[in-house]
Amino acid sequence: MLSFLVNLTSLGIPESVKKAMEESLNDVFDYPDQSKSNLAKAISARYHVEADRICVGNGASDVIFRTVFALRPKKALILAPMFGQYACALDRVDAHVTGYVLNHEDFKVKEDILDQITPDMDMVCICNPNNPTGTIMTKEEVIRVAKHCEAMDCWFVLDECFLEFVDQGDDYSVMGCLDQFNKLIIIKSFTKMYGIAGLRLGYALCGQEGLAAKIDKFGCEWNVNRVAEAAGLAALEDIAYEQMVLEHTTRERQWMQEALREYGFRVMDSVANFLFFEALPEGRENLGKWLLDRDIEICPCDKYKNASADYYRVAINTHENNVRLIETIGEWLK
Amino acid sequence: MLSFLVNLTSLGIPESVKKAMEESLNDVFDYPDQSKSNLAKAISARYHVEADRICVGNGASDVIFRTVFALRPKKALILAPMFGQYACALDRVDAHVTGYVLNHEDFKVKEDILDQITPDMDMVCICNPNNPTGTIMTKEEVIRVAKHCEAMDCWFVLDECFLEFVDQGDDYSVMGCLDQFNKLIIIKSFTKMYGIAGLRLGYALCGQEGLAAKIDKFGCEWNVNRVAEAAGLAALEDIAYEQMVLEHTTRERQWMQEALREYGFRVMDSVANFLFFEALPEGRENLGKWLLDRDIEICPCDKYKNASADYYRVAINTHENNVRLIETIGEWLK
Repeated sequence: MLSFLVNLTSLGIPESVKKAMEESLNDVFDYPDQSKSNLAKAISARYHVEADRICVGNGASDVIFRTVFALRPKKALILAPMFGQYACALDRVDAHVTGYVLNHEDFKVKEDILDQITPDMDMVCICNPNNPTGTIMTKEEVIRVAKHCEAMDCWFVLDECFLEFVDQGDDYSVMGCLDQFNKLIIIKSFTKMYGIAGLRLGYALCGQEGLAAKIDKFGCEWNVNRVAEAAGLAALEDIAYEQMVLEHTTRERQWMQEALREYGFRVMDSVANFLFFEALPEGRENLGKWLLDRDIEICPCDKYKNASADYYRVAINTHENNVRLIETIGEWLK
Repeated sequence: MLSFLVNLTSLGIPESVKKAMEESLNDVFDYPDQSKSNLAKAISARYHVEADRICVGNGASDVIFRTVFALRPKKALILAPMFGQYACALDRVDAHVTGYVLNHEDFKVKEDILDQITPDMDMVCICNPNNPTGTIMTKEEVIRVAKHCEAMDCWFVLDECFLEFVDQGDDYSVMGCLDQFNKLIIIKSFTKMYGIAGLRLGYALCGQEGLAAKIDKFGCEWNVNRVAEAAGLAALEDIAYEQMVLEHTTRERQWMQEALREYGFRVMDSVANFLFFEALPEGRENLGKWLLDRDIEICPCDKYKNASADYYRVAINTHENNVRLIETIGEWLK
């Protein structure tokens, strides 16, 4: 089965990380670093965020749950469609969750999102770029939301997990403004860029002093295993690999986006390492099913709110695999 | 530094588990098994508990936090002294926690614990054997508490994490009675017996149908990393290693217990892979500090409620290391 389901680097695990993982097996007898200070220090050095504003967890998902458990919002706003873990975590604290419904024309967040961030709102969660749509807000747009959240005394959880796959991604990040926004929490992941989803490693960056330590307390201790720690420390130093992934992703995304548009599909303006497009059946068999019969998996988006089975998400893969997908979709169209 | 701090197997990681960990590194690119069904099935086969009563987590600590988050007790009873993670988790849900104060004569749980399990009590947490004391309740005593908890509609969280180090441990376990007690939750760990604390792996066994799935939801998804999963699956099959650890632990514990008693220390009746004793200074320098100066670490118990810096916990180590500790303590006494 050729899979385009998971949004991970298509270049495999970097050699530097593989080596670190292998060596770390000599250390797994002992408990992991409870403080996770080595990782926090390394992240701090790389991204110029103070170490005590960083909360490291067992994958971004762990940090999302801890954040929601620590802050227990009563009312929250998320995007629709959006990555599902925020809604899951909010459900556990019985939050009343409303969705900012992305219009189907371009699935982009517009300024009218501010209208939904009312004084009774406790938390806003936005993925930038968004998953599954791959669409992005500019830094100015994000800062506008951040400022409005400050004014409304509303937590702003901003997921920048896919930003490292974005060309000139730093221009979109608000990481550098973290200390200006007391209510801002940025979620980041290690698993996507470095291909270590099976190990689990993610973190939160917190605008408010003391918040990272508070969030860390809302779940078990020793949550980051030693293999993930070693992999993360090695990954943070492998800037050449990141550059290679970024170049590959940018090139392949553009090629696939054009190819799908030439086929006549409505492909959204994704800047991430996946594409989101509408494939209306037009009398043909369902595209996802048809591809499955040919041993190719793509992600139908019917599980997302405000999307449907006619929308698909496709991860950027190796060039060879991308060609196979595009050619096979060409056969479906014939 | 020679350490007697952590209560892990003193025979290192079994070869079968090492091999499984190494091989698992080939799989860490992909997300872990969200359902954790392979592990649940293997635990089920080994311990004869239905797989859907099993909730697997990122260490016992993860399962403890999820259990407390899922059930949100308002009032809870724990032992004093006892392993600290229960009090930590209960603090996060603002539970009112009272301690069953173990008497300093033998630090054993007595029948009068039932008096503290009143109708307003929501959760009782007991470690059997207890940590740091190493003392154990008989199966009959545990069942008496379980029955009383059923009558009081009170959750009974029973931590059997150290039971595999107990000679004839099965005779003390209530795992076989799980389906008779709707309120019973048994906590188990992989990290201690198999020496994989750095990987994190533990689980809960639930008397109530559907409870395991509910507990699993109160924390992030994909919480068990692939290396831990592989290690756990291999560990469950290595019965010869467990037998070897058990024999070593039993022999060494008896030897150390006798040696410390001959020195005149008050050593409690530990049945686990650690000893708990009182070392009154009697005009001498503090034992823990004195040993530290000689590159030996033992655990002073002043961080535990209802214990003090005069009480120490010492993990059973290799014979050579145990001899060194006993001889060095002998020098302190001179």
